[in-house]
Amino acid sequence: MTLPRRVRIVEVGPRDGLQNEKQAIATDVKVALIDRLADAGLPAIEAASFVSAKWVPQMADGAQVMARINRKPGVAYPVLVPNMKGLEAALAAGAREVAVFGAASETFSQENINASIAQSLERFRPVVEAAKAAGVKVRGYISCVLACPYEGEIAPAAVAGVARALYGMGCYEISLGDTIGAGTPGRTMAMLEAVATQVAVAHLAGHFHDTYGQALANIYASLQFGVATFDSSVAGLGGCPYAKGATGNVATEDVVYLLHGLGIETGVDLDRVVDAGEFICAALGRPTNSRVARALLAKR
Amino acid sequence: MTLPRRVRIVEVGPRDGLQNEKQAIATDVKVALIDRLADAGLPAIEAASFVSAKWVPQMADGAQVMARINRKPGVAYPVLVPNMKGLEAALAAGAREVAVFGAASETFSQENINASIAQSLERFRPVVEAAKAAGVKVRGYISCVLACPYEGEIAPAAVAGVARALYGMGCYEISLGDTIGAGTPGRTMAMLEAVATQVAVAHLAGHFHDTYGQALANIYASLQFGVATFDSSVAGLGGCPYAKGATGNVATEDVVYLLHGLGIETGVDLDRVVDAGEFICAALGRPTNSRVARALLAKR
Repeated sequence: MTLPRRVRIVEVGPRDGLQNEKQAIATDVKVALIDRLADAGLPAIEAASFVSAKWVPQMADGAQVMARINRKPGVAYPVLVPNMKGLEAALAAGAREVAVFGAASETFSQENINASIAQSLERFRPVVEAAKAAGVKVRGYISCVLACPYEGEIAPAAVAGVARALYGMGCYEISLGDTIGAGTPGRTMAMLEAVATQVAVAHLAGHFHDTYGQALANIYASLQFGVATFDSSVAGLGGCPYAKGATGNVATEDVVYLLHGLGIETGVDLDRVVDAGEFICAALGRPTNSRVARALLAKR
Repeated sequence: MTLPRRVRIVEVGPRDGLQNEKQAIATDVKVALIDRLADAGLPAIEAASFVSAKWVPQMADGAQVMARINRKPGVAYPVLVPNMKGLEAALAAGAREVAVFGAASETFSQENINASIAQSLERFRPVVEAAKAAGVKVRGYISCVLACPYEGEIAPAAVAGVARALYGMGCYEISLGDTIGAGTPGRTMAMLEAVATQVAVAHLAGHFHDTYGQALANIYASLQFGVATFDSSVAGLGGCPYAKGATGNVATEDVVYLLHGLGIETGVDLDRVVDAGEFICAALGRPTNSRVARALLAKR
């Protein structure tokens, strides 16, 4: 069994983790979190979202965040953009990488971004073209790649179709999201096999949620398939809107522990990620969702 | 990749999960928990421990537990016995299966059972012989199969040696315990490869702790190796004495969810295990450690 020698972790805590927070989080706290994560060696940190402040008020200060972070050479700071207006704001804020957000489930697409899958892809096309014309890389997210809160299980072929479309229009990487964390390794493998017929595995990333505790098993299965990029969130920031009180994003600390245990390089300093997690959990006034952080902090 | 079609889950919550509880737990609560777990379809439930009440006061009512449970046909109710005195008490209480408890780490063996590994094996030999003479099956536990809180990493060959000795003296199954939950799938595989040279994989069980969130990844790796028996604890009962506040045993709910997701039969009704977990968590006044239970209860 050959696993990748090196894995790239895309830290999504500052955006995907914080976006649904009800309490106001000061811009400086967001900036301090991002800078700590960069100092911990994370190579990519999703820093903000340029969506309507009406829909995601927590992310309304994206331009200020981008202006205040200490951009570390070699670190990518992608931001989420839903449309041309978002892209223009992101470019004005100096973003050098953006991400568009689609779904493999028709119902989820309608509920989440108010468009069919086909409509959303047509909406993304000029965004990707304009971004590339500006020399900005575009990442494509697909949510509900294993299951949907409305439709249940999603067919691997549906995911493959969306992945092909996003890659075909110019996304350099497709992040495959198990949005409700319901997947297990067998279905993860079947989905990856279908997607890999359309987009080479080198251009795929795994985005697993730990709602049912399955994220690391799914990541281990994905590693065996050759996937070498994974999204995760420091301290497991970000709950599951479809199961209140349950966990969402897999914790960066837990992923790094798994990878280092497997002898896979990440360039990440686990202790400093734990520190960054402690910082943001203290700011939010809540315990960490990372089992690794809990175990390591208990021993300090 | 061929996985086992069917897996046997050994539920250890009523013993391994509850033994370190500081608060008094009524015998009837333990009995009700065991009966609920049996009704949920679990094929083996570790029901009690016949060790000195001085060392483990929580388990002092083992004989009453064994007398009051509603023994379901086809369900095994093993109990832990450290020595001949424990075996005699277990037999008097009507136990039909017992378990002895060794370690792969010299220091842990000294600290935990006050004997060297060799001394502990000599102590177990007459226990296993007497149990078998009485027609009682014996299971052998080995703790610290991947790492030890005192010695750090444990050599796979050391685990293989203890497994061979326990199997050789008559244990029908060897349960391999990652006592501090520090292992990852690569080291799990290396350990299993070493042990399988001495004891056929059909006689091996995995006993993983979720302290670092790695248990399901380790179980998935073990399944790929052919292991088809796993220990787990309802609601993830049982903390980690080596990292206060951290989790210990992997939750039965999380394991069952993984296995069913992989299309592997267990005979277990997940919803009823969630119910049993809710029952004991209410009795103990604490939240569940199972992510699956949290997600499913949030949706009820």
